[in-house]
Amino acid sequence: MDEIYVIGHKNPDTDSICSAIAYANFLKLNGINAKAARAGELNEETKFVLKKFNVDAPELLKNATGKLILVDHNEKEQRVDGDYEILEIIDHHKFDFSYSKPIYILCKPLGSTSTIIAEKFFENNLEISREIAGLLISGILSDTVIFKSPTTTEKDREVANELNKIVGLDLVEYGKEMKKIGANIEGKTIEELILRDFKEFNFSGKKVGIGQLELIESEEFLKRKDEILEEMKKIKEKENFNSLIFAVTDIMKEGSTLFCVGENELVGKAFNVDLSSGYVYLPGVMSRKKQIVPPLKEIF
Amino acid sequence: MDEIYVIGHKNPDTDSICSAIAYANFLKLNGINAKAARAGELNEETKFVLKKFNVDAPELLKNATGKLILVDHNEKEQRVDGDYEILEIIDHHKFDFSYSKPIYILCKPLGSTSTIIAEKFFENNLEISREIAGLLISGILSDTVIFKSPTTTEKDREVANELNKIVGLDLVEYGKEMKKIGANIEGKTIEELILRDFKEFNFSGKKVGIGQLELIESEEFLKRKDEILEEMKKIKEKENFNSLIFAVTDIMKEGSTLFCVGENELVGKAFNVDLSSGYVYLPGVMSRKKQIVPPLKEIF
Repeated sequence: MDEIYVIGHKNPDTDSICSAIAYANFLKLNGINAKAARAGELNEETKFVLKKFNVDAPELLKNATGKLILVDHNEKEQRVDGDYEILEIIDHHKFDFSYSKPIYILCKPLGSTSTIIAEKFFENNLEISREIAGLLISGILSDTVIFKSPTTTEKDREVANELNKIVGLDLVEYGKEMKKIGANIEGKTIEELILRDFKEFNFSGKKVGIGQLELIESEEFLKRKDEILEEMKKIKEKENFNSLIFAVTDIMKEGSTLFCVGENELVGKAFNVDLSSGYVYLPGVMSRKKQIVPPLKEIF
Repeated sequence: MDEIYVIGHKNPDTDSICSAIAYANFLKLNGINAKAARAGELNEETKFVLKKFNVDAPELLKNATGKLILVDHNEKEQRVDGDYEILEIIDHHKFDFSYSKPIYILCKPLGSTSTIIAEKFFENNLEISREIAGLLISGILSDTVIFKSPTTTEKDREVANELNKIVGLDLVEYGKEMKKIGANIEGKTIEELILRDFKEFNFSGKKVGIGQLELIESEEFLKRKDEILEEMKKIKEKENFNSLIFAVTDIMKEGSTLFCVGENELVGKAFNVDLSSGYVYLPGVMSRKKQIVPPLKEIF
């Protein structure tokens, strides 16, 4: 039987890696020859999580072939490169997906893909190991920003608490520890920070890139606004983006500073703000998926 | 609480109508204020099914507003007209779907949407009334052409048999009776028959229409090839199709005669046949979804 790879999006985040590992485990328990993979380098937060629960990093695929199951993404721009068959999609993002034949798709508007994978374990009465429970909790805490993001649902909290019966963590303390390591920007260039958690979108034919940097506190970093805009201009030119957006999210303040290079008037209109200076603070905005992408898709 | 409409595709078939009624019933049993609707006139087969189980036809929506749940379709060209919010999609077709925010999506590569809805009842341990069980069986038998279509899975048979514990039909006999009424072409114009079960697709910007007519035996009808091609040309011109395709499916012979007007060379290539005469018999081809749409989407 051919091996089936379960893989998250390019520029993988903790939810993308943890949900891939957990779903491959779920499939194996159901007799399917599945293996987790990743479509890019691990970030510091994810490295910390894998080390904490003593789990190996999934295999890196640079050019995929064969049969793939996509978790935590569906859009073409975010998929691993290669020529492959898509068997399934499990996701919690907006859809922009076209495929030539019917496949299994499960998408729920929840805070993380890890929540959906955990529900599949529960529904099938499958035993969850401590490692898998720890990874799924990490995916939930990471994507919901420790339940602070407006994408958080009652189901995410409920599932995390249920999983935590197996692991026994202080969820908020563990989440803060994880986020602090993920938010470490020491020794990183501005370019690395813009691209750390970066997604590309196709909005009505326009190529739009949206990076997000989560910091415990953003004040210090925001002193470097000119450098940030300068670096963004370079990336925009090099990669031919119509518009490049960078959200610096302040976890404590619960809001984001939005930087924009290209189509500033249009992007400003999406959020009812003036972006002519290149940046603006948006109080309450924590989620790219729920608060940044939808108004942009609407306006483009 | 706002009423939520559950609705199938334009030119509704039996699966589209029955899965909408059954899913609205499922949601109501879960305390959600849902109501079944339809996006077009009922065909003769569906009228027979509703009468058999004594169920009213769903409300006809011509221009929808408010909140909608889509069953048995996802593509824009097949959705009801109007300006509405999409809350959920439950389907068994290929996907070509883009939306600005995350929603609940469940798609399984099974023989009918009715199978998926029945599974939801089973998973939630909800009691299924005789009426709903009868409609779901009808949706399964109709879409799988009494289990003869290659889209049929073991799950479809299993679910139909499980539902039939409530209804107690001779499934094959009932399926034949239903199909015979659906295949009645007496007094119908060629145009009506081409458009009876018709779906529109957007293949890489090309407008392609695909009609399918299921007949118990097709020999008699196929004597009118010239009339069929003449009528197809008229529809193609009037509605500006790049390509218009019409599959006349012979249930007994288990194959379809494919008629094509526009892009004949390209369409022929998709099936490795010569379509220069305007038509060709394709043995074994029973399913638009699985055997006609995928090669066309690939080639366009």
